[in-house]
Amino acid sequence: MNYKMIAYVLGSLLRIEGLLLLIPTVLSFGYGEKPAQKAFLITVAACMICGTLIRHREPENKSIYGREGFVVVALSWIVMSLFGSLPFYLSGTIHGFINCFFETVSGFTTTGASILTEIEGLPMSILFWRSFTHWIGGMGILVFMLAILPMGDERSMYMMKAEAPGPMVSKLVPKVKSTAKLLYTIYIVLTLIEMVLLLLGGMPLFDSVVNAFSTAGTGGFAILNSSIAGYDNAYFEYVITVFMLLFGVNFNLYYLLILRDFKNIWKNEELRYYLAIIVISVVLITGNILSLYPTFESAFRHAIFQVAAIITTTGFATANFDLWPEFSKTLIFCLTVLGACAGSTGGGLKVSRLIILLKLAYREIRHIVHPRSVNLIKLDGYKVEEDVIRGVTGYLVVYLVLLLGSFILVSFDNHDFTTSLTSVVTCLGNVGPGLGMVGPVENFSFFSGFSKLVLCFDMLLGRLEIFPIVMLFAPSIWRKSFM
Amino acid sequence: MNYKMIAYVLGSLLRIEGLLLLIPTVLSFGYGEKPAQKAFLITVAACMICGTLIRHREPENKSIYGREGFVVVALSWIVMSLFGSLPFYLSGTIHGFINCFFETVSGFTTTGASILTEIEGLPMSILFWRSFTHWIGGMGILVFMLAILPMGDERSMYMMKAEAPGPMVSKLVPKVKSTAKLLYTIYIVLTLIEMVLLLLGGMPLFDSVVNAFSTAGTGGFAILNSSIAGYDNAYFEYVITVFMLLFGVNFNLYYLLILRDFKNIWKNEELRYYLAIIVISVVLITGNILSLYPTFESAFRHAIFQVAAIITTTGFATANFDLWPEFSKTLIFCLTVLGACAGSTGGGLKVSRLIILLKLAYREIRHIVHPRSVNLIKLDGYKVEEDVIRGVTGYLVVYLVLLLGSFILVSFDNHDFTTSLTSVVTCLGNVGPGLGMVGPVENFSFFSGFSKLVLCFDMLLGRLEIFPIVMLFAPSIWRKSFM
Repeated sequence: MNYKMIAYVLGSLLRIEGLLLLIPTVLSFGYGEKPAQKAFLITVAACMICGTLIRHREPENKSIYGREGFVVVALSWIVMSLFGSLPFYLSGTIHGFINCFFETVSGFTTTGASILTEIEGLPMSILFWRSFTHWIGGMGILVFMLAILPMGDERSMYMMKAEAPGPMVSKLVPKVKSTAKLLYTIYIVLTLIEMVLLLLGGMPLFDSVVNAFSTAGTGGFAILNSSIAGYDNAYFEYVITVFMLLFGVNFNLYYLLILRDFKNIWKNEELRYYLAIIVISVVLITGNILSLYPTFESAFRHAIFQVAAIITTTGFATANFDLWPEFSKTLIFCLTVLGACAGSTGGGLKVSRLIILLKLAYREIRHIVHPRSVNLIKLDGYKVEEDVIRGVTGYLVVYLVLLLGSFILVSFDNHDFTTSLTSVVTCLGNVGPGLGMVGPVENFSFFSGFSKLVLCFDMLLGRLEIFPIVMLFAPSIWRKSFM
Repeated sequence: MNYKMIAYVLGSLLRIEGLLLLIPTVLSFGYGEKPAQKAFLITVAACMICGTLIRHREPENKSIYGREGFVVVALSWIVMSLFGSLPFYLSGTIHGFINCFFETVSGFTTTGASILTEIEGLPMSILFWRSFTHWIGGMGILVFMLAILPMGDERSMYMMKAEAPGPMVSKLVPKVKSTAKLLYTIYIVLTLIEMVLLLLGGMPLFDSVVNAFSTAGTGGFAILNSSIAGYDNAYFEYVITVFMLLFGVNFNLYYLLILRDFKNIWKNEELRYYLAIIVISVVLITGNILSLYPTFESAFRHAIFQVAAIITTTGFATANFDLWPEFSKTLIFCLTVLGACAGSTGGGLKVSRLIILLKLAYREIRHIVHPRSVNLIKLDGYKVEEDVIRGVTGYLVVYLVLLLGSFILVSFDNHDFTTSLTSVVTCLGNVGPGLGMVGPVENFSFFSGFSKLVLCFDMLLGRLEIFPIVMLFAPSIWRKSFM
């Protein structure tokens, strides 16, 4: 294990966090928010000083391989969340460090589950930082670092692999650095377009910016107590719906779009499944909730907004789906488990994993009917390697074990079955709202400190796709002699 | 597809069912239960006549291979359940054919979920038949047929494979017929011992017989409205606890016991995991419910009885665990999913599948830490073939798809999340009770006819381990030209 290099990366990352924190710092001065000013200044200083101390000097041996990539990513996210929660803690806007940590982890992992019961009274700079964490966490801070720092290609690939979501990671262009830059360019452009569209519809500038951040990261922190429902504006709802869905698509496809490679976009099975699942869910839910809304348009708008918010794991709300008929709630629950496309900013199991698992199931059934037939699993017309299939099934098993394990631990709080189960599922999927006491108009404040830490752990597991975090607990990984 | 042979097997099976129905027929005369007498006589006649008509004459080509084995088993269980529900329907003891079918499927699949709100008023012969279906379904009626009918070895193996639970089927002795005989001998002897022990404790003869049947099949139909709690007798509870646990063990181990091969019994990992899970669950639940019971012994007795009832998928009850703290309920829910050992009469995913899945997960994690290491999965000291691993993961995926699919369909009834989810899980696992409206002191009567059929389908899927039933829906399997 290359400890020096790990420290170097962690140090660089803290300094970047410090720089990013300058934006809300400036805002706190602009808005004249005294306690926030002090909190942000201290945090920036802490990030810069600790970052520089840890970074110390560039190590000679800069090699980072598989296991170090995982460890670096896992530690980065934990350290980043610890420092990121300082503004909430120091400004006194959120009480108790566990609550601050929960809110920050929920922000960076783009979950959007909140422990706040009252949002509208918070300082603007704090609200900005809260939504900004979504935007930073959405595409990944290490990907950001790779885009701006000079780093060798081989070692950075391992970090990118560990932070990027989905069963397979592909570089858009041969160089990791250029890939990271391209991803961030697409990300920034899409965010700006949404911001402008919201502004054009008459949303205040501040609201447009933070809501665009929350949409882009598929996070879901809103700045009104009643989330997007608070604007009561159909135009905003449609714009946000479209952008939630866009941010749930694999970013590689946008690169293909730039290249005008429409053939390969259409060949993308994940995109077609994703769209099909959305259409079917919207049709079924619209039909199911039709009698609850005055017009068909209104039922449709609420159905598509909620479906988009859940499948992309954003978690914004314009309706309290916990009051919908059970059939719609069950569909919403299934979408919570599923999540968005690989290579998007969304969480969950990912549509591509579902496709591979369904094809695997079909292969097993075919194998029994035609024992001698050879059945390859293909995706987008290409053979899926057995290695990837093994990875996907392994992922599913570890996911289920962690899901049930967390469910057991959280149930110790003695809240009802639905609340405990859906709180774990929604945190593991980085969605935000669940059912029952964690429904769309509720929050996570009532959980015990222990349960909040379990749920923080689940959010990190979900965002980093389990293995980097699990790695931290493998004793053999910490041995220095480890080869 | 060898249709003639399928008809021959189905006909034989119906005639055996007719013969087995003679026992409750005799009882109905002994107890002088008029409407039941008529119902049983008509059913026996129907089984005999239809069986003989379908069976017609022995086909020349008696070959039964993989796919036919699956189809025969699936059709057998559906036909057997249709005829088996006639006594309930014709005697007027259960209203509506779907209800009768549900109760019979629940009986044969050893689920024990009931649509009856009042049990104690039923005729004795009907109660006997209800519990007897558990006993018949527990070890499998086709295994019974293989034990008594003259049949070639090769073809009968495929039927046994399709009916026997667990990821791998092993013959105890080289011949299938002898294996089937041996399994039934062990089954009968264990059932008789339990009966005698209950009798010695002062339980009435009739009650001892039917409760032993329900225990042996790991079914759970009781003849008192409040299940085993109705006897209010600690001795009965301990005896039934021990026998539930015994019937949840792989029957191969009893054969090893007869051979005095203690070394191989101890080497059996599934047994050790099974016992460990039971001990841990009992300790945790006893601690969790201690304050609800007057003495430690009472809390322990209720904990171990409920744990045994759920993990073995029997579903008897001596306590309403739906009123226990959520932590205990969550553990019970996890045990509902898990189930008993492969090769036992219990249902669920099976402990051996859990072991293979856990080892698979561990292998995936190890593979990331040590990419070049070769990691074999071993069970009982032997290498598990990749084929078996693929089968287990395929099984898990199909199981989850069917679970979520059934959950969506059942939620159309608009009962709460917990009720819909746990009703599907408990039926798929052949357990019986769930949580909420299907808790241990509740029943399944309130579901719509559609949901009852979905749950019947789930119970059959669970008992036959999914693939035989799924096969029936594969169009290619029905083509005559099929090779």
